[in-house]
Amino acid sequence: MLKFHTAGESHGMYLVGILEGIPAGLKLNLDYINSMVLLRKRGYGRGKRMNFEEDKPEFFGGLTRDNITTGAPIGFRVRNIDWEKGGRGKFSSIPRPGHSDFSGSIKYDFENLYLPAERASGRLTVLDVIAGSICILFLKEFEVETYFFVTSVGGVSIPIEHSDGVDAIFKKAISSSVLVPFPEFEEKIMGEINHAIKEKDSLGGSGLVILKGVPAGLGDYNRWDKRIDGLIAQAIMSIPSVKAVEIGEGIESSRFKGSEFHDPFFIRGGKILRGSNNAGGIEGGITNGEDIIVKFYAKPIPTVRRGVPSVNFKEFKEVKSSYVRSDTVVIPAVSLIVASRVSFVIASTFLDKFGGDHIKDIKDSFNSYINSRRRFWQR
Amino acid sequence: MLKFHTAGESHGMYLVGILEGIPAGLKLNLDYINSMVLLRKRGYGRGKRMNFEEDKPEFFGGLTRDNITTGAPIGFRVRNIDWEKGGRGKFSSIPRPGHSDFSGSIKYDFENLYLPAERASGRLTVLDVIAGSICILFLKEFEVETYFFVTSVGGVSIPIEHSDGVDAIFKKAISSSVLVPFPEFEEKIMGEINHAIKEKDSLGGSGLVILKGVPAGLGDYNRWDKRIDGLIAQAIMSIPSVKAVEIGEGIESSRFKGSEFHDPFFIRGGKILRGSNNAGGIEGGITNGEDIIVKFYAKPIPTVRRGVPSVNFKEFKEVKSSYVRSDTVVIPAVSLIVASRVSFVIASTFLDKFGGDHIKDIKDSFNSYINSRRRFWQR
Amino acid sequence: MLKFHTAGESHGMYLVGILEGIPAGLKLNLDYINSMVLLRKRGYGRGKRMNFEEDKPEFFGGLTRDNITTGAPIGFRVRNIDWEKGGRGKFSSIPRPGHSDFSGSIKYDFENLYLPAERASGRLTVLDVIAGSICILFLKEFEVETYFFVTSVGGVSIPIEHSDGVDAIFKKAISSSVLVPFPEFEEKIMGEINHAIKEKDSLGGSGLVILKGVPAGLGDYNRWDKRIDGLIAQAIMSIPSVKAVEIGEGIESSRFKGSEFHDPFFIRGGKILRGSNNAGGIEGGITNGEDIIVKFYAKPIPTVRRGVPSVNFKEFKEVKSSYVRSDTVVIPAVSLIVASRVSFVIASTFLDKFGGDHIKDIKDSFNSYINSRRRFWQR
Amino acid sequence: MLKFHTAGESHGMYLVGILEGIPAGLKLNLDYINSMVLLRKRGYGRGKRMNFEEDKPEFFGGLTRDNITTGAPIGFRVRNIDWEKGGRGKFSSIPRPGHSDFSGSIKYDFENLYLPAERASGRLTVLDVIAGSICILFLKEFEVETYFFVTSVGGVSIPIEHSDGVDAIFKKAISSSVLVPFPEFEEKIMGEINHAIKEKDSLGGSGLVILKGVPAGLGDYNRWDKRIDGLIAQAIMSIPSVKAVEIGEGIESSRFKGSEFHDPFFIRGGKILRGSNNAGGIEGGITNGEDIIVKFYAKPIPTVRRGVPSVNFKEFKEVKSSYVRSDTVVIPAVSLIVASRVSFVIASTFLDKFGGDHIKDIKDSFNSYINSRRRFWQR
Repeated sequence: MLKFHTAGESHGMYLVGILEGIPAGLKLNLDYINSMVLLRKRGYGRGKRMNFEEDKPEFFGGLTRDNITTGAPIGFRVRNIDWEKGGRGKFSSIPRPGHSDFSGSIKYDFENLYLPAERASGRLTVLDVIAGSICILFLKEFEVETYFFVTSVGGVSIPIEHSDGVDAIFKKAISSSVLVPFPEFEEKIMGEINHAIKEKDSLGGSGLVILKGVPAGLGDYNRWDKRIDGLIAQAIMSIPSVKAVEIGEGIESSRFKGSEFHDPFFIRGGKILRGSNNAGGIEGGITNGEDIIVKFYAKPIPTVRRGVPSVNFKEFKEVKSSYVRSDTVVIPAVSLIVASRVSFVIASTFLDKFGGDHIKDIKDSFNSYINSRRRFWQR
Repeated sequence: MLKFHTAGESHGMYLVGILEGIPAGLKLNLDYINSMVLLRKRGYGRGKRMNFEEDKPEFFGGLTRDNITTGAPIGFRVRNIDWEKGGRGKFSSIPRPGHSDFSGSIKYDFENLYLPAERASGRLTVLDVIAGSICILFLKEFEVETYFFVTSVGGVSIPIEHSDGVDAIFKKAISSSVLVPFPEFEEKIMGEINHAIKEKDSLGGSGLVILKGVPAGLGDYNRWDKRIDGLIAQAIMSIPSVKAVEIGEGIESSRFKGSEFHDPFFIRGGKILRGSNNAGGIEGGITNGEDIIVKFYAKPIPTVRRGVPSVNFKEFKEVKSSYVRSDTVVIPAVSLIVASRVSFVIASTFLDKFGGDHIKDIKDSFNSYINSRRRFWQR
Repeated sequence: MLKFHTAGESHGMYLVGILEGIPAGLKLNLDYINSMVLLRKRGYGRGKRMNFEEDKPEFFGGLTRDNITTGAPIGFRVRNIDWEKGGRGKFSSIPRPGHSDFSGSIKYDFENLYLPAERASGRLTVLDVIAGSICILFLKEFEVETYFFVTSVGGVSIPIEHSDGVDAIFKKAISSSVLVPFPEFEEKIMGEINHAIKEKDSLGGSGLVILKGVPAGLGDYNRWDKRIDGLIAQAIMSIPSVKAVEIGEGIESSRFKGSEFHDPFFIRGGKILRGSNNAGGIEGGITNGEDIIVKFYAKPIPTVRRGVPSVNFKEFKEVKSSYVRSDTVVIPAVSLIVASRVSFVIASTFLDKFGGDHIKDIKDSFNSYINSRRRFWQR
Repeated sequence: MLKFHTAGESHGMYLVGILEGIPAGLKLNLDYINSMVLLRKRGYGRGKRMNFEEDKPEFFGGLTRDNITTGAPIGFRVRNIDWEKGGRGKFSSIPRPGHSDFSGSIKYDFENLYLPAERASGRLTVLDVIAGSICILFLKEFEVETYFFVTSVGGVSIPIEHSDGVDAIFKKAISSSVLVPFPEFEEKIMGEINHAIKEKDSLGGSGLVILKGVPAGLGDYNRWDKRIDGLIAQAIMSIPSVKAVEIGEGIESSRFKGSEFHDPFFIRGGKILRGSNNAGGIEGGITNGEDIIVKFYAKPIPTVRRGVPSVNFKEFKEVKSSYVRSDTVVIPAVSLIVASRVSFVIASTFLDKFGGDHIKDIKDSFNSYINSRRRFWQR
């Protein structure tokens, strides 16, 4: 089972992530990891801090000099340039509605209501992206590919159809500053964001993650905490801002009849195929060999420049929440983080199923499995 | 931390559940537990098996003769009358689309594609309801109340507003055979179900769970696997049929502006109050003292009397999936199961926070906490 | 990872065990399991309850009709004939020194100081033996064999040398009523036990467990909670009565010089061999392919017929601890339970390493591993 | 529950530890932590690397500027001066018997047999000492004190009696370079070590850890993996070099009669007392309010200057194991590490029992508990 641990704060010296359970023998492509970290940082509508943070991970554990994994915990460190420039966490008695300021300070009995945000901050998701990128690289060894898209920002929706052409539209999306593959929608969304910036407001949005090539048989129905749909839902819903999660046509499914919703089996050219993928690649809490399709909905970030009605808890009087340097829109970054987390869950259940301490061991057991299940399913 | 384990199959001798972590000194009201189990069994549109299964749990561990918990694992057993009547699991080479038949048989290399359903079956959720009822009884000791509703069946939606009157409408809902508090909608839904029965089809639906009185401070932002929104999402998404989960106004949140969405603080009559509860009682992965609001969406069950296009894997030819005695609609039962699972998560994080091996210990630490946090929040 | 859960009390209706994580496709030899359960019950110096308890497990989950595992949790139930005969737990205000009476009643705030013993009782170890027997059967599929011996009772030691002839002396031991392979020592020990019975006292003892054929590479040095020596120590030290655990020549090792203690490598007949096995088959928290050798030391059981100075906590006066029907010597049973637990740990780490949901999958990955590591080690 | 994670290698850039679960509001005395780290480094018979490693932890997470914990994971970093000086891990095809070289390289399929030692190395125990020191500081808030001693080195034993004077002899021990409180034995031991240095050999030893003031009621008999004796045994046996663990008079217990071994209850001066502490403070897997007494036995370290017979796996010929800069004796450091680990286990079960997110919350629930159990036990 993969495990991921972190320490460090948004306004502290640096952040550290430790990823445990990656087998030995995986060559880490650091350029790929760095490109993913940059993708997170970028994005139209992000705040100023993203301009000067370098976000270049320093790997200090779990790798040989040639960047091959050793089976040891993979340790990485990301400096906070903000701290080095003298930036420190601020004090406040005024909670920002929607943030962890209020709930976290009750829990831990803090006087400084901004302390919880030091750990609840989106800043820490840089570590998720690094860990997720390692998982994506691991999965690539087994021809699993990960795609992610923004599907709406504020009121604007982008009609992304899940289809065979996903690879092509993904390439367009990641070269867009809002993770949207179609120029006409990109423009519309940037207009929406510009409007929000002018109004000193923030915007929510939604996104889509697709994994192609995931083998059938991951997850389990024997315990509810081993079902892969539950594991994915947890991994996504615990990302700051995300408030709803959907597998396949999850929401629509509630309005369907059984005879219409469930994905039929067919035989075509001597192969068994499915007629649709409303289930999003998961049946009975187990992957079924079809594409994994996950959708998610994120609220607007709670730091709003124009302020939101709040209360000064020290002076016990009504005020507007104060502004802290922040983003206007984070849904492109959220989409990448969701992709990171889903890849983490898939890699983790993959390792549970196939065992092995060296990547070659896993390839052996993976290939034996694929061969022994041919009567059901051919990859 | 609460733990829940099960063994037994849908067509086996009996089912056993073990609930670990409930403290000593809790008097279990067995009548309440039995009433919840009956509520699950009942419900318009359920299949014939529900008519003869007794579903009366036998508690064999963790209780004194007076039904007071001892801190030991609480063990309970539910007989399968079906088995006692000679019913046994059937053999099939034809997977039902939407069920665990295909994915589970690949995973475990089964010849009998109906074997996975023995454990993936909704039959086992009777154990969830028993465990959940114990959690609800535990939470009642701290004045936490749990409510659940059906909000749609097939195409029919029921306009349930979350409000102070939830207690009254809940009483009406649980006396309805479709868990719907309003007679006019009850009738409409039963019409929809009758139509589906006639068409030999099944229907999906959606529901709502509300917990009132949950203290602020449960869950944690310090690790993603401790955030209470993630734990709730996992617990719900891993219920058979559920395909989407939403906290508060989760889906709508993606279309909102920050200045509109986030729940403002006010001072009224010397108390700090929130102006809305779009967050559904959770901010930063921690409860904030407002009602917990969770919504969920369930697909129609995959056993469809009229059949769905499938393939006979042994004979390698196209057929219709065969019918197994089943329900037409399960959303009322699903709503109860979601309530059980959410109560489990709340009770579990509650016990993590307040510790204690006897219910009196927990009351002591709970009261100390409530008193020490008065400057923030008064229950 | 294997998981084992239990519910039920020593004087309750019945006991239930749930073993999770055994793969599908393992044919369970129920005769073997029953023979192990009988071996536990038997043993010179055991109390009267063992005469009428049947201890025949009823398997109610996780098996097909042909007793082949399905990958589902394996559930088994053992009736308490004592309960059926009307035996119930007694009330006492006088703690037995050495038992859980005092410490457990403080923890859970019990008035009845005998309540903790309901779960801390050796009675529950019948479940451990069943779970352990399944693990032993699983390991036999990979040619791992488990042996166990009594090495001392009270003051009498039995000189059991670990050698190639272990299989032969084990056969003798399990036909002995004190698990001792040599008739002259058997007699001596029975004399010691008879003396203790006459004196209304109880006796401690020690034992030895050996596993042959365990592959190199189980466990891990990368986290302390994954080291196999730690896992074994926990599994044994948490058996009622055990107070010390030793791996290989653990105690003697502290008096050794490095040049003498560590097991040298040699080349003989084109194979690399070790000159000794002082390490007990574990180096760096990982199995090294040599026999696993574990020793343990158990205190005399705390229920002593002649009584031990104690205090009546209700009346607050000095008394002798009261007698409850019990055994005089349990070290033969303890040895079997240690063997069960060590097999559980080995099977668990084995499954972690080789993955797989069906026994054939595991054999495939196991064989690939053995082949790929030939340059180091030949089984 | 406390969790402890690490990353980094013996010859890597630096080491990082993350300690999770320490509540908010604990003022960390960094001088104390540093003194413990120095104590580990020191010790007669340690190797040369200890001379230049600074071992000064840099805390980068989980603390306010005033070194007060925030409930967030506590992150700390220790530089490897060796790396900064150009020291790197070496390559070898010759395994050191007793080390992880052989078993670890089989597991992970390494060509370089020295790679496992990068993580299995005693170097990493500096992180254990830091984490353990934080646990000791936490326990001091509840008047729990931790003591540790060397009780033998090679063939020389030190007669340390467990008694009320433990505080005084501990002060002497920690000012000794071999952690021995009596000058005459100190001298004898240093002679033994000098002899071993001259002979280019290494020595084993044994030690004793005592915790005073641990409340009754920690641990649990309800699951074997919650028994505190098992948790302690695991925590100690997984320390490099340790090969045997004993609770109280664990080994002797096997030769005792029940009437002699078990610690009687008496009434003296209106208080209930125990006549002895053979149980080492644990009955039924739960602390009983007496001192926790743990003994352990460590093998000589496997890096032996004079070499041990081994095999060059590449050239397939018999050789002597090669020497790597190392220590002659580590039992003083091991004793400190055992104390760190036992404190970790006690603090972890303490937090499980008393819950709470701020140190004041824990004090409240702790005091309520102590008061409510007065009829049993007075601290």
